[in-house]
Amino acid sequence: MTADPLRIALAGLGTVGAGVVKLLDANAELIARRAGRRIEVVAVSARDRSRDRGVDLSRFDWVDDSGALAERDGVDVVVELIGGSDGPALTLARRAIAGGKALVTANKAMIAHHGAELAEAAEQAGAPLKFEAAVAGGIPVIKGLREGAAANGIAQVDGILNGTCNYILSEMEARGSDFAEVLAEAQRLGFAEADPSFDIDGVDAAHKLAILATVAFGTRPDFEGIETRGIREVVAGDIAEAAALGYRVRLIGLAAEDASGLYQRVTPCLVREGHPLARVTGATNAVVAEGDFVGRLLFEGRGAGEGPTASAVVADLIDIARGESGPAFGIPVSGLTAAKRADRGARRERAYLRFIVQDRAGVLAELTAAMRDGGVSIESMIQRGTGGGVDGLEGGVLVAMTTHEGPARAVAAALERLDGSASLVGRPMVMPILD
Amino acid sequence: MTADPLRIALAGLGTVGAGVVKLLDANAELIARRAGRRIEVVAVSARDRSRDRGVDLSRFDWVDDSGALAERDGVDVVVELIGGSDGPALTLARRAIAGGKALVTANKAMIAHHGAELAEAAEQAGAPLKFEAAVAGGIPVIKGLREGAAANGIAQVDGILNGTCNYILSEMEARGSDFAEVLAEAQRLGFAEADPSFDIDGVDAAHKLAILATVAFGTRPDFEGIETRGIREVVAGDIAEAAALGYRVRLIGLAAEDASGLYQRVTPCLVREGHPLARVTGATNAVVAEGDFVGRLLFEGRGAGEGPTASAVVADLIDIARGESGPAFGIPVSGLTAAKRADRGARRERAYLRFIVQDRAGVLAELTAAMRDGGVSIESMIQRGTGGGVDGLEGGVLVAMTTHEGPARAVAAALERLDGSASLVGRPMVMPILD
Repeated sequence: MTADPLRIALAGLGTVGAGVVKLLDANAELIARRAGRRIEVVAVSARDRSRDRGVDLSRFDWVDDSGALAERDGVDVVVELIGGSDGPALTLARRAIAGGKALVTANKAMIAHHGAELAEAAEQAGAPLKFEAAVAGGIPVIKGLREGAAANGIAQVDGILNGTCNYILSEMEARGSDFAEVLAEAQRLGFAEADPSFDIDGVDAAHKLAILATVAFGTRPDFEGIETRGIREVVAGDIAEAAALGYRVRLIGLAAEDASGLYQRVTPCLVREGHPLARVTGATNAVVAEGDFVGRLLFEGRGAGEGPTASAVVADLIDIARGESGPAFGIPVSGLTAAKRADRGARRERAYLRFIVQDRAGVLAELTAAMRDGGVSIESMIQRGTGGGVDGLEGGVLVAMTTHEGPARAVAAALERLDGSASLVGRPMVMPILD
Repeated sequence: MTADPLRIALAGLGTVGAGVVKLLDANAELIARRAGRRIEVVAVSARDRSRDRGVDLSRFDWVDDSGALAERDGVDVVVELIGGSDGPALTLARRAIAGGKALVTANKAMIAHHGAELAEAAEQAGAPLKFEAAVAGGIPVIKGLREGAAANGIAQVDGILNGTCNYILSEMEARGSDFAEVLAEAQRLGFAEADPSFDIDGVDAAHKLAILATVAFGTRPDFEGIETRGIREVVAGDIAEAAALGYRVRLIGLAAEDASGLYQRVTPCLVREGHPLARVTGATNAVVAEGDFVGRLLFEGRGAGEGPTASAVVADLIDIARGESGPAFGIPVSGLTAAKRADRGARRERAYLRFIVQDRAGVLAELTAAMRDGGVSIESMIQRGTGGGVDGLEGGVLVAMTTHEGPARAVAAALERLDGSASLVGRPMVMPILD
């Protein structure tokens, strides 16, 4: 091993940052064999110097201002693990790249919002920019799409991209519990943040989807173009009805491209049992891509946590050490196209619709008339008296229906007709069906 | 696109070769965007010039002697799709690399037997050698292990690596049919070769496993060290008994490394329902790798056929066009270690044992005494009268047992005690259990 080591400056020493240090220690020899040179942390930066992170940091130079790592001599790669789409993370990323340093990041929010700008700057500076850890934790899905499936036109990418949501949904499924109860327990167990909104409202999954879509379709990241709806409104009754129909409820990020444009959404969906995403339980992540020559590819593994995320960060470092890193998104930014947003209303799908209604005469007639007038063709419908109500909605009765395939705008039109109806308790729930 | 095109010479125009031409035609623009330059076939070679392959070959120079492609001017990459571990394929590969040309191949037999030699020659010549298509068709699993999981010590790799066997086993499972019947139908449908022995005897899977193990563990390919047993002796009764116990029968390639050495085998196994490999049906392939930081990774997709295999070949070409290709196995050949073969007898596992026995008194006592004397602890045992016998073994009765975890040498010792017993009809069947 005569080559110079690859010298790393690490900003952010939370779970993932500490994990990177542990991994580089534990597998140093192996990594040096595979990378062709040693990978050595030389400097670190974090907010709290005194905190015990379970790793010896005294070997490294400590820098209070993370941004200063960008101009530090004797550093080849800056690893940004601070997080947040803007602020110190973005400042550091911009400065590191401008200074010609390689940048490795796990920051999905920053790449979703500023990925094109950063990738373009990296190309101009001749500096690698890599972010495998930003999507699906330890699963090498950026690499799988950017390189493994590179020969294919990709029609669609579907993924379970948020482990917290998948954990909550699969616990609700396993125990018949309601959302709030499972969320509270997930928070107690550390599977959900104290402020869980980024996860459960689908924002985290949407950040990842924006990145996946860019790699899959060669379009510029379009986070704002993603229809995003989380899992707060999924009730135990939805999961039970789905199961009775042969489906499971999963939060699915979907990006599809056709002649009408790029369609991107993060929503809870009914996924047919037998579909590879239906059997993904707990905090596992999985991504399915449909290529025109390769067919369906599935990548599955642990989507978060110290070990898996550190594994992805260090895989990027090994690529850089080997000199195997081209344009960040696989195509130079000048070659990415502006995503034309597809007309959502025209998208044809089957859907699951669920209402909580007052238990009184005429309600079903009102619902079905609205469907008819909106142009929705009902495939199946069930009304279930719930005794004590649904999720604390006293006296409410659950009505669930599935539709035949039809345009999303028909469902929207039907729901518009029901807007403000005194028969409804709470908002209707719509979930696309993935067969 | 001002860069020079990457110029390809293609040897072998069977299903995969024709698929590569079709793919390069169909996705030419997309590939050029991703590769940063056009990828153009300039010369081809195959045995039969007159055969209609569904693609226009008149644009390319036709060369009768495939070996001559190796020295041809104006060629950057030779794509070897002739097949066979030696003969013209190996001659071409050696000559192409010696001449400094990049080599891309789908030839698992050649890489399993001569991969170290070819990779070393490629390093000396400064020429890329790539073989993603050699393992698991369109699934980017070589890349996934070589790069995606590169930061990890890998403890074990398990895979369903032969689509023909998996198709046969899953058809036997779905229909309760016997092996011979399903094989005959698979041959009629084109899912199995006229001479199916490479597939059904596990040789093809073992070639792939030797390559996977090299990438996963950094050991030199050791095809001869693989314990290889195919699926010919799996009977419908095995699949039924497995199902009753909550398992499915799959042909599994397994490579595991620990302090005692490298253990490699291709055998039919009982895989617990719920294990990701249990639900893989039909001609699909899947690989599970266990990394020390990333945990369990799963890669799944189509393991053979024109489109998937072409997808993998062209992915390699795109990597070469991008200049993203280092040592073939991830580590230079000089850094690969000689695989120390683990003591098979010491490997501790649970096992399924099945006997076809004469229907007469004392047989169970004979079997169970042999187990006791060999040191095998029986967990469960079932004897099933079969009326008409098992798979045409008239009068035979099926006895199936599962063992508690114990060393493989105990099972071998027990079976040795039964060797030549007049109570047995045919050979006992042993399958490891994957929980």
